[in-house]
Amino acid sequence: MSSGLNMSRRIRRTPYTDKVEEHGVRGFSVVNHMLLPKAFQPSVEEDYWHLREHVQIWDVSTQRQVEIRGTDAARLIQWMTPRDISWAEVGDCLYVPLVDERGGMINDPVLLKLADDHFWLSIADSDVLLWAKGLAIGSGMDVLIDEPDVSPLAVQGPKAVNLMVNLFGDTIRTIGFFKFAWFEFHGTQQLIARSGYSKQGGFEIYLNDSALGPALWDAVWKAGEEFNITPGCPNLIERIEGGLLSYGNEFTRQNNPLECGLEKYCQLDGTITCIGLEALQKIQKNGITQQIRGVLFDGAPCPACGKPWLVTAEGKQIGQITSAAYSPRLKRNVGQSMIARDYWSVGQKVTVHSSDGIERNGEISALPFN
Amino acid sequence: MSSGLNMSRRIRRTPYTDKVEEHGVRGFSVVNHMLLPKAFQPSVEEDYWHLREHVQIWDVSTQRQVEIRGTDAARLIQWMTPRDISWAEVGDCLYVPLVDERGGMINDPVLLKLADDHFWLSIADSDVLLWAKGLAIGSGMDVLIDEPDVSPLAVQGPKAVNLMVNLFGDTIRTIGFFKFAWFEFHGTQQLIARSGYSKQGGFEIYLNDSALGPALWDAVWKAGEEFNITPGCPNLIERIEGGLLSYGNEFTRQNNPLECGLEKYCQLDGTITCIGLEALQKIQKNGITQQIRGVLFDGAPCPACGKPWLVTAEGKQIGQITSAAYSPRLKRNVGQSMIARDYWSVGQKVTVHSSDGIERNGEISALPFN
Repeated sequence: MSSGLNMSRRIRRTPYTDKVEEHGVRGFSVVNHMLLPKAFQPSVEEDYWHLREHVQIWDVSTQRQVEIRGTDAARLIQWMTPRDISWAEVGDCLYVPLVDERGGMINDPVLLKLADDHFWLSIADSDVLLWAKGLAIGSGMDVLIDEPDVSPLAVQGPKAVNLMVNLFGDTIRTIGFFKFAWFEFHGTQQLIARSGYSKQGGFEIYLNDSALGPALWDAVWKAGEEFNITPGCPNLIERIEGGLLSYGNEFTRQNNPLECGLEKYCQLDGTITCIGLEALQKIQKNGITQQIRGVLFDGAPCPACGKPWLVTAEGKQIGQITSAAYSPRLKRNVGQSMIARDYWSVGQKVTVHSSDGIERNGEISALPFN
Repeated sequence: MSSGLNMSRRIRRTPYTDKVEEHGVRGFSVVNHMLLPKAFQPSVEEDYWHLREHVQIWDVSTQRQVEIRGTDAARLIQWMTPRDISWAEVGDCLYVPLVDERGGMINDPVLLKLADDHFWLSIADSDVLLWAKGLAIGSGMDVLIDEPDVSPLAVQGPKAVNLMVNLFGDTIRTIGFFKFAWFEFHGTQQLIARSGYSKQGGFEIYLNDSALGPALWDAVWKAGEEFNITPGCPNLIERIEGGLLSYGNEFTRQNNPLECGLEKYCQLDGTITCIGLEALQKIQKNGITQQIRGVLFDGAPCPACGKPWLVTAEGKQIGQITSAAYSPRLKRNVGQSMIARDYWSVGQKVTVHSSDGIERNGEISALPFN
């Protein structure tokens, strides 16, 4: 499902937008007041197979950085997340749920520790900058908070390592998963992490200088030609299969991290203090009433899930699918949904009411799908 | 300039989206993580003339409300804006710039005073909810902050009064400009303000119950049939001519309210205390280096301004146009731009470098355009 998007300065272009337009981008989404390319290949399915077999270049500039520096930087970030960040070392990336005073999800960024008093939060779609600044100003913390000129470019797929070796040399192999290091590009030092919003492996180049955007795009492209590189973007099928959640789609401020399957990132034993700690402890004690699950379901390839679809069992609503796609590998439709406690066991039979009016037989699956 | 927009739950539908789709909406923008219709009529120009002569129904649900209640509600809001709100009475709407600690614009909402300890901020495109909650949690204020289920529907144009009398009775005439009152709809009390994002007059119905959305749309439509009602949306030509600014387009967090021509809403004499007060006092003392202006310019109707266009004089950049359109009434192109101090006098000759590669002769104009 798509419609026209009216362009304006408010929906910011990225350092790579000219490039993705040259490559014939067919649609965008809007994340953090900025353009996210959403379609290149003739179909999401072709794009899916390509991502699994080759290598792609993705404009993920919408992963904006909230930079927090200063004496109280680590204290502020620990206050913002139930995950214990005290053990993090410089060069680490940590997935950190951010919650409000009720335990509701504000965002689920990746935290990058640049120095003991210098961090980036690489965010999903909400203004974490305003949240962090509000907390800091309200409490009088000694920090500087801003959005630096950083525009991540992702290189994803099984051939990403060979491409990056071509471009940055053999030492790129030494970066561990969810770690980062610094590499030279056009006389500047740029942060490169082994990470990305796919399960196919790859890197994210946190380019810190918009003016270098076209040059970086061209350099990655040239280094990737021998590996059959194409322009791409987070792939809906691959993301759903891989169990990667999307803030605003699968979960919102109405959901807590335990519902999102993120309990392993919540240190609720009292060893750390954070906003929402008491609320989360209470939720943990009482037990959650729903949790994210996969749903496998039958019938012809389902339409795009532009608005949530009811999931029922025994005639009752037990969830709503918020992202769905046909998996050409599993040869079934796959979706993600919060599912009510009594029905969340793997194998539970359900009915999916897709927007084309068809009632489809399905069953609950673990995430990621196998 | 438009492209495809991929739909997902993250880009929220409104209680009226089904209706605007039935009416053949041709494009959307995304504001506050929600769909804003952007085009119905065959052209923005036809839409412009219709808005000036008849009446339109606009889905402006993207004007989300940040509800602030409690003992410290008024104190928190005064802290957030340099405008003195102490004189506001219940039933008043106030346009209030919100600024950060550097005096940069966070948003420019309309404040509605529902009670001495109960307010709504009807916001432009940034997460003011997170800003307000951060400030409140950080400083320990006694307030409750949330996004209520309120979806404004605007009725705009010279025939709006007669339409609203049809629907809500003659007392609707007694609402003053930028005031609100409560009216009955389907057994509920709904807030109606005399306001809207046009200069043609009209009302905004702050519908507080999504389930009533389709019924309200249909009731307004039926009451408007005799007045030649059409579905519409904020009109680019009318907005630019009228000098109405758009957050994210004409100004961002990089701009202060004085640059935006909002000095009359800034009480900087020390009688109120707010975030950014010292920064704004310093800016006022030193004088601003640029300010928002109109630009009138020649040539064929200009293309849509999807990315800023340079404005030059004497071979130097003196500004950038961030919104532009051809005015069929003035028979010239009109735009809005921050303009450097030495060149901001009305009548100053400038050159506009539109994205079609044409250099157009132009001149600085006051806002609104006459």
